[in-house]
Amino acid sequence: MKRTACILTALLLALLLIFTSACAGAKSEDAPPKYVFLFIGDGMSLPQLTAYANYMGTVEFDFTGTLAAPTADNQPVPLFPSFTRFPVTGMAATQDASKFITDSASAATAIASGVKALDGTLGVDAFGNPRPSIAELLREQTDYKIGIVSSVSIDHATPAAFYAHMMERVSYYDIALNLVESGFDYFGGGGFKQPHGAAGDMPGILELMADAGYTVADTYEAIAALGANEGKVIAVAPELDNDFGDAALQYAIDISDGGRDLRLADFVRTGIDVLGDETGFFMMVEGGKIDWACHANDAATAIWELAEFEAAVTAALEFYEKYPDETLIIVTGDHETGGLSNGFNLTAYDTQLSVLSNQRISFMKFMSDYIFPWREAQTAFEDAMTDVEALFGLTVLTERELAVLRRAYELSMIPYAERDSRSEEYLTEYSMLAYEPFQLAVTRILANKAGLDWTSTVHTALPVPVFAAGAGAERFAGFYDNTDIFHKLAFLLGLD
Amino acid sequence: MKRTACILTALLLALLLIFTSACAGAKSEDAPPKYVFLFIGDGMSLPQLTAYANYMGTVEFDFTGTLAAPTADNQPVPLFPSFTRFPVTGMAATQDASKFITDSASAATAIASGVKALDGTLGVDAFGNPRPSIAELLREQTDYKIGIVSSVSIDHATPAAFYAHMMERVSYYDIALNLVESGFDYFGGGGFKQPHGAAGDMPGILELMADAGYTVADTYEAIAALGANEGKVIAVAPELDNDFGDAALQYAIDISDGGRDLRLADFVRTGIDVLGDETGFFMMVEGGKIDWACHANDAATAIWELAEFEAAVTAALEFYEKYPDETLIIVTGDHETGGLSNGFNLTAYDTQLSVLSNQRISFMKFMSDYIFPWREAQTAFEDAMTDVEALFGLTVLTERELAVLRRAYELSMIPYAERDSRSEEYLTEYSMLAYEPFQLAVTRILANKAGLDWTSTVHTALPVPVFAAGAGAERFAGFYDNTDIFHKLAFLLGLD
Repeated sequence: MKRTACILTALLLALLLIFTSACAGAKSEDAPPKYVFLFIGDGMSLPQLTAYANYMGTVEFDFTGTLAAPTADNQPVPLFPSFTRFPVTGMAATQDASKFITDSASAATAIASGVKALDGTLGVDAFGNPRPSIAELLREQTDYKIGIVSSVSIDHATPAAFYAHMMERVSYYDIALNLVESGFDYFGGGGFKQPHGAAGDMPGILELMADAGYTVADTYEAIAALGANEGKVIAVAPELDNDFGDAALQYAIDISDGGRDLRLADFVRTGIDVLGDETGFFMMVEGGKIDWACHANDAATAIWELAEFEAAVTAALEFYEKYPDETLIIVTGDHETGGLSNGFNLTAYDTQLSVLSNQRISFMKFMSDYIFPWREAQTAFEDAMTDVEALFGLTVLTERELAVLRRAYELSMIPYAERDSRSEEYLTEYSMLAYEPFQLAVTRILANKAGLDWTSTVHTALPVPVFAAGAGAERFAGFYDNTDIFHKLAFLLGLD
Repeated sequence: MKRTACILTALLLALLLIFTSACAGAKSEDAPPKYVFLFIGDGMSLPQLTAYANYMGTVEFDFTGTLAAPTADNQPVPLFPSFTRFPVTGMAATQDASKFITDSASAATAIASGVKALDGTLGVDAFGNPRPSIAELLREQTDYKIGIVSSVSIDHATPAAFYAHMMERVSYYDIALNLVESGFDYFGGGGFKQPHGAAGDMPGILELMADAGYTVADTYEAIAALGANEGKVIAVAPELDNDFGDAALQYAIDISDGGRDLRLADFVRTGIDVLGDETGFFMMVEGGKIDWACHANDAATAIWELAEFEAAVTAALEFYEKYPDETLIIVTGDHETGGLSNGFNLTAYDTQLSVLSNQRISFMKFMSDYIFPWREAQTAFEDAMTDVEALFGLTVLTERELAVLRRAYELSMIPYAERDSRSEEYLTEYSMLAYEPFQLAVTRILANKAGLDWTSTVHTALPVPVFAAGAGAERFAGFYDNTDIFHKLAFLLGLD
């Protein structure tokens, strides 16, 4: 009996341990995730995901409008990005320290450092006190390596909030100096907006980085050759979208087939190689041009950028499959941009997303390669419309649409400085930003034909979804504040 | 030792049981929830919750715009409805069988019966086959009691999907006959749109219900006297918003202080009393007029209706506190309405939600009590504007806003049948539905001043959030299809 009791005791003890560890395992609070990916889609909330889903579902199924009766083959099936199928979903409110509608700097500061900030400020709280980011805390308190990746310039608001502390998000050179000092292990994607300062007379940032011991890779060959054991690395895309001095990656819609441009996903894969799997790492990846396309009310370009963002998440998922128990992937947005709705008053319950596939060019390339030369040459509206037909497929237009286009074209033929761009009408119809009325009119009419509409050329106060997979993911369920993303990460990673 | 071993064994066994049950309890898959509340906010998605939150936060904190620097007291704090703090959040896609943008009938059929349906159909799949609702399955397979509550007429699309099977959602009398035959235990809220049929020559529905054994309560006294042991009950609000034949509860914004109108929450509390706590119950509660207000682009009225809906959820939470381990509460929407954005191009990053508190009347009462009499009398625009100032606080208007109002007023002074209401311009600027241009112009300008905007007078394809608390709630996490709400409920309740 004694022996039996002992065996029984041992058996029960083992079972108890299994259940205890299963219970604890379900909570994942014991071991911090060794590899953390934080993806931020700038300007990405539910409306952007829905436009992507309905467009992809339309193109995939060649769904061309309303059907009399559905069959298994022609039901509309929205194809949301794969990360929306992560096991955990949450939502985050985005108001900043002084406005319900956040800007990207205050939103990124909330996510990176867990504090509400004033718009335009980076890595400081609402009273101007510097607050360490999750990346800086990891670097100070652990041996995790740190990677920062963006499809826009690496000194832009979202990436900068993880390493800079600045009262003005436009202090690009000072931000870049913070980057050099950060000591982070990997920077990848776009370049610098002011690599030699605002006046062009300061020491070059890439030279300073080389001096600080970074491997600077800014050619296809150098980037392809990167791997582990390189030490600290900055990889800058060789071909940047420089027409506006943005130092950002090309818009996906503008990359011609067979081109060799590096994409956001490439910089994630390179980052995984550079950071290695030994010490653990934290990598923040921004899809920055979803926001830019939505500011310009350019739905097709935004959808292409969202596809780029999804591909970048897929690169992280490939890594996740190797280390499923130690990897955490979080995907969220910083705010909604454009007041995008998947519905429009005139088209009512119908949509025709396939018309967006006629667009061949981003709003920005349309401005630089067409509208600006047209203004230079004072090209006639009718001649311009020949190109618009080819570039956007706008072949059938109503009188109302033609009138909207003609009025916008006339305004765009006036130099920006000579327009009354602060009038109530201009600010309501067009933008407080320097977008061209004709560009806005063209992409909005295309969106309207697709059954989409926009209310703004800036941000809105819509909360953002949060998708999480892997170690500790369940902590990201529920509806919380964007600052809680920092606090949840800090808790999971055991940071003070 | 033998005795010690036995004690140790017993102790470990007890611990094992506790852990096992704690683990299983965390999954809640063993015992079905005995009391299930399903709340559906018609036309409620994230934009509506955000407008509510920012308005309540503004009024609460008297936040009047942009601040130079925030303090702990004047930071903008969105006050989302209490149910957004439920422990589990999910999201549901809403496309129906033939369109990305669902209508309320197909959306309610998806939630109630788990199948994609064509717009306008109730309780049938896309091929016209009747499909049982979760409520009907519960009634057939269990002894759960069933309650159906709505703030609009009880034969309207959302409640009807739980008991009717109809190819046309407007077959109100036939739907009501389905209601009589349902044998459900409790109906509460609004009345019937065609209580004696479309021609008024059929047997009265309330009489048929009395014949079928229902207690019919349609006075304050009769409703107040309701309790358990009444048998089957239908409780119809004594004062219905009948100007448009809607048979719905009054708009909350129109209920004068000290009035005795019954509210949505009252019908939930009455339902809890009638259904009792003995056998278990399923209660569907619709907040139906959030949608109606958003169709009319009337933000203030929508916010008031959302507050009514929140109060109804609170009534369920009071019950939940008595039976926390046996109660499940789910709160969701069926679709977004209006393409509402919490942001507007002209106001950019600023909001001024407090202006909505100047509105004294719903869009519907504004039409029936003001616009229609003005048309009858051909009242001058300037005279009408005196009332508009008092009713909406629109005292300061720009030239542009005045021009928009004047043009809309002129159209509203023309009888509806004589307007070119199918023109592209009319359908773009105003509505495919019979809303008044002047009403739309007034509530939209007020919304714009608040920093809100609308893109549609019908629905959009935005997914809806799902909030869940209580027994089995964790099953509602993640991003899924609206039909999955049925499947999750059916699984939890052990239905075939």
